[in-house]
Amino acid sequence: MAKVLTPRSESYAQWYNDLVLKADLAENSAVRGCMVIKPYGYAIWEKMQAQLDRMFKETGHENAYFPIFIPKSFFSKEADHVEGFAKECAVVTHYRLMNDPNGDGVVVDPEAKLEEELIVRPTSETIIWNTYKNWIQSYRDLPIKCNQWANVVRWEMRTRLFLRTAEFLWQEGHTAHSTKQEAIEETETMIGVYADFAEKYMAVPVIKGLKTASERFAGALETYTIEALMQDGKALQSGTSHFLGQNFAKAFDVKFANKEGKEDYVWATSWGVSTRLMGALIMAHSDDNGMVLPPKLAPFQVVIVPIYRKDEELEKIKVVAEDIRKKLIGRGIDVKFDFSDNKKPGWKFAEYELKGVPVRLAIGPRDIENGTVEVARRDTLSKETVPLEGIDAHIADLLDQIQENIYKKAIDFRAETTTPVETYDEFKKVLEEKGGFILAHWDGTPETEEKIKNETKATIRCIPLDQPDEDGVCMVTGKPSKKRVLFAKAY
Amino acid sequence: MAKVLTPRSESYAQWYNDLVLKADLAENSAVRGCMVIKPYGYAIWEKMQAQLDRMFKETGHENAYFPIFIPKSFFSKEADHVEGFAKECAVVTHYRLMNDPNGDGVVVDPEAKLEEELIVRPTSETIIWNTYKNWIQSYRDLPIKCNQWANVVRWEMRTRLFLRTAEFLWQEGHTAHSTKQEAIEETETMIGVYADFAEKYMAVPVIKGLKTASERFAGALETYTIEALMQDGKALQSGTSHFLGQNFAKAFDVKFANKEGKEDYVWATSWGVSTRLMGALIMAHSDDNGMVLPPKLAPFQVVIVPIYRKDEELEKIKVVAEDIRKKLIGRGIDVKFDFSDNKKPGWKFAEYELKGVPVRLAIGPRDIENGTVEVARRDTLSKETVPLEGIDAHIADLLDQIQENIYKKAIDFRAETTTPVETYDEFKKVLEEKGGFILAHWDGTPETEEKIKNETKATIRCIPLDQPDEDGVCMVTGKPSKKRVLFAKAY
Repeated sequence: MAKVLTPRSESYAQWYNDLVLKADLAENSAVRGCMVIKPYGYAIWEKMQAQLDRMFKETGHENAYFPIFIPKSFFSKEADHVEGFAKECAVVTHYRLMNDPNGDGVVVDPEAKLEEELIVRPTSETIIWNTYKNWIQSYRDLPIKCNQWANVVRWEMRTRLFLRTAEFLWQEGHTAHSTKQEAIEETETMIGVYADFAEKYMAVPVIKGLKTASERFAGALETYTIEALMQDGKALQSGTSHFLGQNFAKAFDVKFANKEGKEDYVWATSWGVSTRLMGALIMAHSDDNGMVLPPKLAPFQVVIVPIYRKDEELEKIKVVAEDIRKKLIGRGIDVKFDFSDNKKPGWKFAEYELKGVPVRLAIGPRDIENGTVEVARRDTLSKETVPLEGIDAHIADLLDQIQENIYKKAIDFRAETTTPVETYDEFKKVLEEKGGFILAHWDGTPETEEKIKNETKATIRCIPLDQPDEDGVCMVTGKPSKKRVLFAKAY
Repeated sequence: MAKVLTPRSESYAQWYNDLVLKADLAENSAVRGCMVIKPYGYAIWEKMQAQLDRMFKETGHENAYFPIFIPKSFFSKEADHVEGFAKECAVVTHYRLMNDPNGDGVVVDPEAKLEEELIVRPTSETIIWNTYKNWIQSYRDLPIKCNQWANVVRWEMRTRLFLRTAEFLWQEGHTAHSTKQEAIEETETMIGVYADFAEKYMAVPVIKGLKTASERFAGALETYTIEALMQDGKALQSGTSHFLGQNFAKAFDVKFANKEGKEDYVWATSWGVSTRLMGALIMAHSDDNGMVLPPKLAPFQVVIVPIYRKDEELEKIKVVAEDIRKKLIGRGIDVKFDFSDNKKPGWKFAEYELKGVPVRLAIGPRDIENGTVEVARRDTLSKETVPLEGIDAHIADLLDQIQENIYKKAIDFRAETTTPVETYDEFKKVLEEKGGFILAHWDGTPETEEKIKNETKATIRCIPLDQPDEDGVCMVTGKPSKKRVLFAKAY
């Protein structure tokens, strides 16, 4: 059977696009830059959502919903924020169409012009802080810890499915606190939640760190990030958590009376992850045959394919398969039967490999005779014949092993592809020949950061939280540095 | 304590608005017609979503996501559809802001004008059928049964929280079938799912029926509806399911090859319920003290309030309360503790009454001595003292009783408030003096329907599916009629 995907070695970008389309994850729509998330891709996103939502609730957050539209004037209230988002936003100017007096279509009704234009939210700090103003009078009203699952729009010029789209789905947490310390703790808690989710569920190891000033969220005093490494040696920013200080409280005049009755501005955080995580999930694990899904996020963990010639054989296989299915469901494992008769087993095998189903069971007449089943692992592409007796325990255990193995593989890859360098020449050489994460000393100035970016396209992904202090000198300027920072080319 | 809500007898509309605000369900935002759904209101919506989503998946549907924007030209392709939605849609015309050359704010950048305007989806038939075109070649690709949870925008001029807002949250199912029969069955299955959900979960009885031609969805051949009766005697359309025939397939040229290899257009349905259901839930059950929530949709079914003077008392109460909580959680019952010390028990009682919590437990020092707890029901506002021993079984049973009682009350109210009439004079008299549902004969013409609407403001809510055939004459024209139809004034 011909490979349906361009091999990664030929073009990683083309492989990615092929995979997203062929595995039925998403596709481009008729609207520039907006994607359609197909049922199989959406089922993975739903699994992500469900787990993240549990983690948010466990850390004391509640969901709410705020308007999709933001009055244009709200953006002007926080200077950095408008600077960051004004250049890429969808603007609603009218609220009615009319029949075209000159043709058969419809045109905008010029009389239905809005007094003030509305922006389709690119992020919701402004509309939410305008709302919080009415919710907060005293310290007793704090903290407020809201999360919103929503769509947002950023008018990106160059888009790629999941990684950068004009409309995307995300969650945005927005919290309000009475002290600076509490807000900083919230910011750190949430980047921790994201890191846990990435590592334990997506099986994607991440580096937690602080963004440099030039890479901060528009309006934040500090941005925490998790950075993941893709198989092509490029980094993917996978989630961010922002300490916003009192910037939005000041912009929207949100004050509270503290315990002593003194007024102060409220302290804020915001944090988000998006459908971009789908891109990270795909690029971290998949291979030339298709997706490799960690069992914890697979829409179904096991697929059962019958191998038969005669209908009597199929009937016997169905009985055994149904028995296996019930036992697996009893263990909380999602199973799909594929008994469709218009596709050959070989076609089905390739299809479920493409879709990354962690475990495939094939059952034929000989298995029925011998009381066995063929078990294939997607991550290693290996097969074994296993007794039916105890098959459910075997598979439950195998799924744990697969989850662990995928994670370990990603950890090992990252270890191999992370290089400490001392000189700028070495930096450029590693970047060109090997890529990956590079740990190097930097003098802490935006000028040097900018120079490196312009000359090499590598950016400082973060100042890692877990990186030990180490005296050194900036690889570019020779000025003193106390800690290595993490560089990479990035998506 | 002064009543916080305007009594229903004084102004039902004001009572409703007071309740939505005071029970922290939702509020108006800075954007005209768009609401903020507050955490408590959103938690109820999440319970609705979760249950509906389960029911959709049980009936073979998958979730997906389609773009929020629809190219303007797509609307022109289905004539009735554009007629129905063009007059109330938000139009995106530009994709960038710039600094105002004359001031300190931002203005639309005139150079960033879109070639074709984009409509913020009021419903997604057009963008989805444009997508399905590429998914469907043969009968083997059918049926497609997708659902989408999304926000939509209809530029309503007169808005009311949950009932009619410019932006609202909903789900929209869009299915594609190879035969007319299968599509009609799907349409009927889904109105059945909605009716089940309304009755078994919301405890709101509904009448299933067909809309008349003039009340059909824009582009549908047949619209099925569920109609609920509110306490003020007005009807609320609570969900609709549309048989779209081949209209959208023709508009977007979606054909398939059938088993015989012959080409035909695909058959379509769509169906949806929205945050409007929150309005139905509130108006069907609540009273002058606040919400009355059916236990199955309450964010927490039980609240525990301690009654104490001394801290030693509180410590003992906490031990008992924790024991109760664990037992209730073991039965899948959500419990909230309210041990906050800055509010008096009386304030808390009123607050949880306002929020409709089905069962309130109060525990004081005497209860500790006697091994009892005070159990209050929200639906009947009655209290009893119950032994701690077996309290969890008692409450589980009580919650079932409450769910049933609320439903029964709504059923009884509807029975009392449904009137068959024979003459137009009688119709007008009942409408004015009593309101509610009226069953009357109608001659089947849009002219008579229109006349009744203009003269009385009552509309045909539906032609009920379960209404028996009965020979009669139209109350207005005296022409023959085979079946009574359901009239009411409506939201």
